[in-house]
Amino acid sequence: MSTPSAALSLEASAVASRPNVQRDAHEFSRAQLEGLMTKRFFYIQSFEIYGGVAGLYDYGPTGAALQANIISQWRNHFIIEEEMLELDTTIMTLSDVLKTSGHVDKFADWMCKDLKNGEIFRADHLVEGVLEARLEGDKKARAAESGKAAAEEVPSEGADEKKTKKKKVKATAVKLDDAVVAEYENILAQIDNFSGPELGELIRKFNIRSPESGNEISEPVEFNLMFDSSIGPTGQIKGYLRPETAQGHFVNFQRLLEFNNGRVPFASAQVGKSFRNEISPRAGLLRVREFTMAEIEHFVDPLDKSHERFDEVKGITIPLLPKDVQESGKTTITEKTIEDAVSSGMVDNQTLGYFLGRIYLFLVKIGIDPARLRFRQHMGNEMAHYASDCWDAEILTSYGWIECVGCADRSAYDLTVHSKKTRKDLVVQKTHKEPKVYDKLVANIVKKNLGPRFKKDAKAVEEAILGLDEKALESLQSSLKNGTATIQAGGQSFEVTPDIVTVEMKTIRETVREFTPNVIEPSFGIGRIFYALLEHSFWTRAEDQDRGVLSLPPLVAPIKALIVPISANDKLAPLVKQVSRKLRSAGVASRVDDSSATIGRRYARNDELGTPFACTLDFASLSKGTMTIRERDTTSQRIGPIDQVIEVIKRLCDGTLTWEGACKELPEYTGQQDLDS
Amino acid sequence: MSTPSAALSLEASAVASRPNVQRDAHEFSRAQLEGLMTKRFFYIQSFEIYGGVAGLYDYGPTGAALQANIISQWRNHFIIEEEMLELDTTIMTLSDVLKTSGHVDKFADWMCKDLKNGEIFRADHLVEGVLEARLEGDKKARAAESGKAAAEEVPSEGADEKKTKKKKVKATAVKLDDAVVAEYENILAQIDNFSGPELGELIRKFNIRSPESGNEISEPVEFNLMFDSSIGPTGQIKGYLRPETAQGHFVNFQRLLEFNNGRVPFASAQVGKSFRNEISPRAGLLRVREFTMAEIEHFVDPLDKSHERFDEVKGITIPLLPKDVQESGKTTITEKTIEDAVSSGMVDNQTLGYFLGRIYLFLVKIGIDPARLRFRQHMGNEMAHYASDCWDAEILTSYGWIECVGCADRSAYDLTVHSKKTRKDLVVQKTHKEPKVYDKLVANIVKKNLGPRFKKDAKAVEEAILGLDEKALESLQSSLKNGTATIQAGGQSFEVTPDIVTVEMKTIRETVREFTPNVIEPSFGIGRIFYALLEHSFWTRAEDQDRGVLSLPPLVAPIKALIVPISANDKLAPLVKQVSRKLRSAGVASRVDDSSATIGRRYARNDELGTPFACTLDFASLSKGTMTIRERDTTSQRIGPIDQVIEVIKRLCDGTLTWEGACKELPEYTGQQDLDS
Repeated sequence: MSTPSAALSLEASAVASRPNVQRDAHEFSRAQLEGLMTKRFFYIQSFEIYGGVAGLYDYGPTGAALQANIISQWRNHFIIEEEMLELDTTIMTLSDVLKTSGHVDKFADWMCKDLKNGEIFRADHLVEGVLEARLEGDKKARAAESGKAAAEEVPSEGADEKKTKKKKVKATAVKLDDAVVAEYENILAQIDNFSGPELGELIRKFNIRSPESGNEISEPVEFNLMFDSSIGPTGQIKGYLRPETAQGHFVNFQRLLEFNNGRVPFASAQVGKSFRNEISPRAGLLRVREFTMAEIEHFVDPLDKSHERFDEVKGITIPLLPKDVQESGKTTITEKTIEDAVSSGMVDNQTLGYFLGRIYLFLVKIGIDPARLRFRQHMGNEMAHYASDCWDAEILTSYGWIECVGCADRSAYDLTVHSKKTRKDLVVQKTHKEPKVYDKLVANIVKKNLGPRFKKDAKAVEEAILGLDEKALESLQSSLKNGTATIQAGGQSFEVTPDIVTVEMKTIRETVREFTPNVIEPSFGIGRIFYALLEHSFWTRAEDQDRGVLSLPPLVAPIKALIVPISANDKLAPLVKQVSRKLRSAGVASRVDDSSATIGRRYARNDELGTPFACTLDFASLSKGTMTIRERDTTSQRIGPIDQVIEVIKRLCDGTLTWEGACKELPEYTGQQDLDS
Repeated sequence: MSTPSAALSLEASAVASRPNVQRDAHEFSRAQLEGLMTKRFFYIQSFEIYGGVAGLYDYGPTGAALQANIISQWRNHFIIEEEMLELDTTIMTLSDVLKTSGHVDKFADWMCKDLKNGEIFRADHLVEGVLEARLEGDKKARAAESGKAAAEEVPSEGADEKKTKKKKVKATAVKLDDAVVAEYENILAQIDNFSGPELGELIRKFNIRSPESGNEISEPVEFNLMFDSSIGPTGQIKGYLRPETAQGHFVNFQRLLEFNNGRVPFASAQVGKSFRNEISPRAGLLRVREFTMAEIEHFVDPLDKSHERFDEVKGITIPLLPKDVQESGKTTITEKTIEDAVSSGMVDNQTLGYFLGRIYLFLVKIGIDPARLRFRQHMGNEMAHYASDCWDAEILTSYGWIECVGCADRSAYDLTVHSKKTRKDLVVQKTHKEPKVYDKLVANIVKKNLGPRFKKDAKAVEEAILGLDEKALESLQSSLKNGTATIQAGGQSFEVTPDIVTVEMKTIRETVREFTPNVIEPSFGIGRIFYALLEHSFWTRAEDQDRGVLSLPPLVAPIKALIVPISANDKLAPLVKQVSRKLRSAGVASRVDDSSATIGRRYARNDELGTPFACTLDFASLSKGTMTIRERDTTSQRIGPIDQVIEVIKRLCDGTLTWEGACKELPEYTGQQDLDS
């Protein structure tokens, strides 16, 4: 784990001071982690008893609590700390809104069908899977020629998320021409950039067929990824389940601005479910059809993207992968302070830089390993045309680098399109400190002459005149000096004369500047962060590979303390209840395990649940009022009076005390304390 | 406000001790409350700038915070306090699940259409609206005959929710026969009980037409209230947006049971969005298409519905409206302790009684007026056939009595149907303390003879034999003594002989009892509680009817403290920041209002936001380190050192101090304190 910078030290102290335990004694096994997730009911495929549905997951008690704790930390870190305006807008979204935002037309993937058995593929995944299998077959064939077995493929350091999306296609040992190998490799390097028709061409050119049946494949067609439905009984109001929460912020912008007394910058925030009807969901929680997002829309003056609290994060060093490095085919990470990243122009502006810092602090605080975290900038071809800059916080997992947070400067795009569509002003009015005085050409229309002259076209002509820019007005003015001018409106030409319109220079005294704010959007995929956190927290004890441990930080652990009575003796029961009540009033989520399992098994079960501390009550507790506390990662035990131990746990959980600190306050438990009793 | 019973006093102290202010100086105006809701962005119709969609609402910053605080209190009161197992299951639900639960076939309302203009009505609302308008017209006509104006209709004390559902139909003064009046009144009294075809008969019999157009009306047809969609690209997996969260608990029952070490009772709980595609949503937040529910499924042994913590609530007196009273046409409320209600058999069992008590405590704690709260028992014709008892917590609002929480004993219905459909065991195995030993007739099938004899029917015959009850086994035994017997299977008869099956008495030693647990389900409509709370909290100052106040308890108020610098003087700014930071670290949500409005206007704005306390910083704050605190309801002000005032606010907000108590700690603010500086 890398050393956090000074600026980070306070916030990240809970993490930085996590007990240092040798965690990499055994190789990470995804299957083992997944087994634990099911056994301890963190999450499970939805409708399991009905056979399950791909891409839908239910969170059980431990998973739901872990997720709720992550969200609660998110609320504290962003909404409370920065006084953001929280929203709760509907999931069911009017189609008009998503038509305007572009989702109805563009939020789609390309799919194709096995022409005989109807199996459906995501077109890019299919091409990718088949070409990769052929390359693998080629390697095998070449290895066989040279008499060696093909080396096991080792994922490269920059293993990308897309590597996980494809359905694994079986490779047959067939040697390819060197030129074909080069062509395949070139295609695979840019597989994300092909349009549907281009994918269709590749399918024909390389005779790509349905991998299992060998049947022919249809041309790629677009499949919109939104779940659709209709609202009300008429069937005439179309609705979609929102694919993101963002549109709910934008359509309420004017109300939010008013709530904020008309001033920018301010941010709205929302945590809620969003939906994507994936063609073929895979990779567990990473590509699902229903997921929790946490989104911030920070509205800012386009002429001033500085941030009031920039100083608080500017000293933090974060790992960056800028676009120029990627465009040169590399994945080398640069470590830079946020201040350097902004001042060098690598990150577009202060506000964007501020959020990169805040995102970094949040992820590290909840337990993401900073050594497996990077900010990757979108390359030109990835980024929406209106965005001025975009960085993804990517986390390295066994599936490769996964985008978990997007942080984009979306410029004025969203507010502009909604305003244009609804003809509602979505603007900020900012009073100049000093009125601005300047001269400007202005057209004066004589309405009483315009109407009779152009009748039904009058409105179009008027709008055309009012829409002219400075240069066109100059030309109109000079034409009118000659007695007549031509106006283009609705595809027709109209002759205008000075009795209808004149153009003159006027002195304008502007007291208010009106502008459409820009939006900087940090958008968090909670389920992906949840999964990455589990991978980063999971390890197995050096002495026994079957003993899994989830080293979740106390801040987000589902249960903070386990209460373990040493035996089922009735005398201990009242004390167990008392400790449980005391922990509850100290705000510490606890759970009693009074099952008949051995104490070792109860500790082990608890390690799998990620519970950081276990309080053991024994007969010394009754006679002397003491309790032991066991720390999950080190398994070391300390002892003290019950109330003091509870007080220590409280501070361990709210991050004001480290385990090292606790060890200074509580003596080691030697077992001797029991014998004394 | 009624006096809470002793058992309630601790939990309800924060409410009971709310400052007593004369609140009913002006009559409640729903329009004024709704105006405030919009102006202060508590909530707004969704997609307002696109014209809005009926039945969908967005919550703004204040509304979202109030809702989040209600949910947070709910979590503490139920999930944390009772160690329930929290779930987060998907909204998108496989159709098979909802087919089994009965929603696909039965979760519908009857609608009919204007045959010419296509306007759609809920059939019961239409009949009700038209008949009520005719009765009103009759009253007018009779009044005109007798020379008096018709008295304004005053809603009766028991004004029911259904009064609000109908679309108000214009009444024309037409006198009706006395017999017709009686018939209409009789129909209206039971309008909820008619089936679709019966409503169709009423429409024909009374020549009911489309109220505005006068056109004929179609026969009622069923309209399913679930939003449907399809999952994945094939269109073959049908899904619905869940109409309740409950099914997500039931399908995960076996996993939950395992998590709870195989033991009942235990409860699962879930807070989340559910959906109903209402035919014509009305009444604001009370009948919407997307809403937040909080549901508990408490799984219990059907032979033992006692509750471990019953003693903690049994002394609470709650207002009950039992079914026999309603069936006699009355709405008289009985006040009873929960203990009496259970022991007299009015409430079916202890667990149900326990939850009624806990629901009561919760609602009163968050600010519902106990004088406007009742528990209404479902009558025989309202209750699902499988339910053994059901009580709704109803809250009186300007729309009448509104069902806000349902609390039903659903018996073993849900688990039984899912188990039957999926052939998965959803049962509990409970070890007897002492094995049960008894004699029982048992059928022994000789499979090696059964198969060859019945071939493809063998399995059906076997199942039929194994399904026989004690009496049928006796008869089979005696028939077989005569050499042959007949078995009915799959609509056919089969002859069996002693070489295929024998029946004999065996001694059974049963160590484990296997049973399907019963479910007791408290189900909360968060949006309805939210709205009722706003009505109960809203009033206007005696001196000025335009000055609205929301007396939300500090526990749930969106913002707990307003920070008001007395002027825009730059010298105050650092102090404002400091107080804001201190409140934040004390866990008190605060907001600064440094706008240029007068202090009186800022206080008034704050009263509308429901903020219980305002801290004013002036020049004495700079020179002496003091701060005043203003209490919203009484508008009284006290003063003290800044840190002491913050400490007082913290205790006021967590319910450990009342305003009366605070007044003992902090002296009254007289204005003199300023002059001294």
